[in-house]
Amino acid sequence: MHGDSHSPVGRPAVVLLSGGLDSATTLAIARAEGFQCHCLSLDYGQRHHAELQAAAAIAEALGAREHRVLRLDLAGFGGSALTDQTIPVPVAGVDAGIPVTYVPARNTIMLALALAWAEVLRSRDIFVGVNAVDFSGYPDCRPEYIAAFERMANLATKAAVEGATLRIHAPLIHLAKAEIVRRGTELGVNFALTVSCYQADESGRACGVCDSCRLRRAGFLAAGLVDPTVYRPG
Amino acid sequence: MHGDSHSPVGRPAVVLLSGGLDSATTLAIARAEGFQCHCLSLDYGQRHHAELQAAAAIAEALGAREHRVLRLDLAGFGGSALTDQTIPVPVAGVDAGIPVTYVPARNTIMLALALAWAEVLRSRDIFVGVNAVDFSGYPDCRPEYIAAFERMANLATKAAVEGATLRIHAPLIHLAKAEIVRRGTELGVNFALTVSCYQADESGRACGVCDSCRLRRAGFLAAGLVDPTVYRPG
Repeated sequence: MHGDSHSPVGRPAVVLLSGGLDSATTLAIARAEGFQCHCLSLDYGQRHHAELQAAAAIAEALGAREHRVLRLDLAGFGGSALTDQTIPVPVAGVDAGIPVTYVPARNTIMLALALAWAEVLRSRDIFVGVNAVDFSGYPDCRPEYIAAFERMANLATKAAVEGATLRIHAPLIHLAKAEIVRRGTELGVNFALTVSCYQADESGRACGVCDSCRLRRAGFLAAGLVDPTVYRPG
Repeated sequence: MHGDSHSPVGRPAVVLLSGGLDSATTLAIARAEGFQCHCLSLDYGQRHHAELQAAAAIAEALGAREHRVLRLDLAGFGGSALTDQTIPVPVAGVDAGIPVTYVPARNTIMLALALAWAEVLRSRDIFVGVNAVDFSGYPDCRPEYIAAFERMANLATKAAVEGATLRIHAPLIHLAKAEIVRRGTELGVNFALTVSCYQADESGRACGVCDSCRLRRAGFLAAGLVDPTVYRPG
């Protein structure tokens, strides 16, 4: 579909890769558009490392040029069930409002790091798999937020001062989860490699009951596709 | 001037503290305005740690409520003389344009981290010591950049969604270096604790010839105040 998977041709792009279904599909889209993909994952003190291992496997499978993991211990700030061991992950269903799994300013931090790397790589393109439809109510997944980040980024850097325009690509932002699953499948994403669960175990097996598992399962169902997720017993 | 220096009264603010003259003065201003100051420094793989030690001493001396250092290794991205050991720090004088000491997206990264901490602390105020007058030509020190970050931040967080307005305070942005030195002196900042040099030695002694040393020295001269900087021989 996009030639030799390690081809050096194409403009460089920084792709934020979490190890989940959405960012894997985003990487596949960036590759299909011909970008040379430099993938960035953040080790922000999350409960488990299965998703970082998943990110590495996805980057390799989808022909990324490189994959880097930056360590930043956000657990010290607390305030989120995803980084603070004292706050339980909710498992009773997706509620209205912003859940405790929200990590404060996570997308802002990740996009800021992507911006730094993009500047060093002389890249004008950052890809992020945010989604404003079947999402968990996070404010930093909304189109108006992404647009505001892009405006800020275009004032922030040496490249911007020198006339380059940086673009934040959020190709999933208006897609329903089922559409994301379909698009990823078309582009050859192996979703068995991805981990969406907020409390996956060491081998990446999903709980099946957190918000992220529920949204993912519903997405495969609505798309009429087989869900390759491995759920743990119990 | 601002009561007991460790008083718990006052609204919480996050203050970005580099260990330099500007951020020390910014902290003194935030304290004078009655804020409870939570200081944040970033250990981003800079050439030396003298400035982080300076930051800790300044936070203590100016009655900050706490001081945290986050480790984030930006050296892996390369591209700056301040984090990349293979790029020499220029010492021949302040040139026009953006120098190699520019760290890609540094202020965006630091403000993003401050935003995360502010949200956890339920703080609506972030202080940053950027300056657009006697600065080294960094794009992320300009007023339009700070305004764009503030707009983005007000779309990014749970607090913003719930109606709180976050403000990025940049009280030095329009001041000349001499005015910053005067203002800091009025507020009792002990500038002997601060380290501005891009290549200070382990004990914080300055080179006297990098851009930052030149701007600092000129600031004390123009203010007609004694420069307490300790320069190393040579």
